Amino acid sequence: MSRDFTWSPSQKKAARAAFDLAVARELKAIRQHAETMLKDNKEDRVIWKLEEYLYEKRREIDQKYDYRYSVLMLVFPRLVHEGWLALDELDGIGEEKTEVFRKLLDLNRK
Amino acid sequence: MSRDFTWSPSQKKAARAAFDLAVARELKAIRQHAETMLKDNKEDRVIWKLEEYLYEKRREIDQKYDYRYSVLMLVFPRLVHEGWLALDELDGIGEEKTEVFRKLLDLNRK
Repeated sequence: MSRDFTWSPSQKKAARAAFDLAVARELKAIRQHAETMLKDNKEDRVIWKLEEYLYEKRREIDQKYDYRYSVLMLVFPRLVHEGWLALDELDGIGEEKTEVFRKLLDLNRK
Repeated sequence: MSRDFTWSPSQKKAARAAFDLAVARELKAIRQHAETMLKDNKEDRVIWKLEEYLYEKRREIDQKYDYRYSVLMLVFPRLVHEGWLALDELDGIGEEKTEVFRKLLDLNRK
């Protein structure tokens, strides 16, 4: 992973689109979880559980979604591993990169 | 307000009941506000506004609801002023105390 990858303009554009797609999906999932927490719990103190949940998610999202090209090669495989992106949604960023992801994800599965 | 008030067992019981009633009302209002925020905003980023709102409310509630008898004489008038308690819901804590609240609240209105 210490190898440097180059990013052409079109690859950068594809990377940005995939990144934004993953954020959007994750925000939607967090929102749905928040709505379910409120819906399923009649006890008003649930708001403190919700506060804790959102606080942790905000920290997690802030930390995870780091768009520097130097770390993107670690961000994307994580997003695929967690299910926020499919590997083929990263096709546009270059085969030499997705090939690395594929190998990393295979290792993770073993 | 530097005057010391005494709290009989029945007055303590009434104080606790009023205090708990105010907390319960405020938690319910916070919950309803949270539900409305989610309902009225289709943008998923609303979860971060919700997180901020709940974080501030938790801090406010933690700070406001202080059940030490030494500060209760300041807590109750605030709760009445903010509408979480009616003055007559504090009848059980002793007339000498509610009389002080009445004067304080009158001053606040002027």
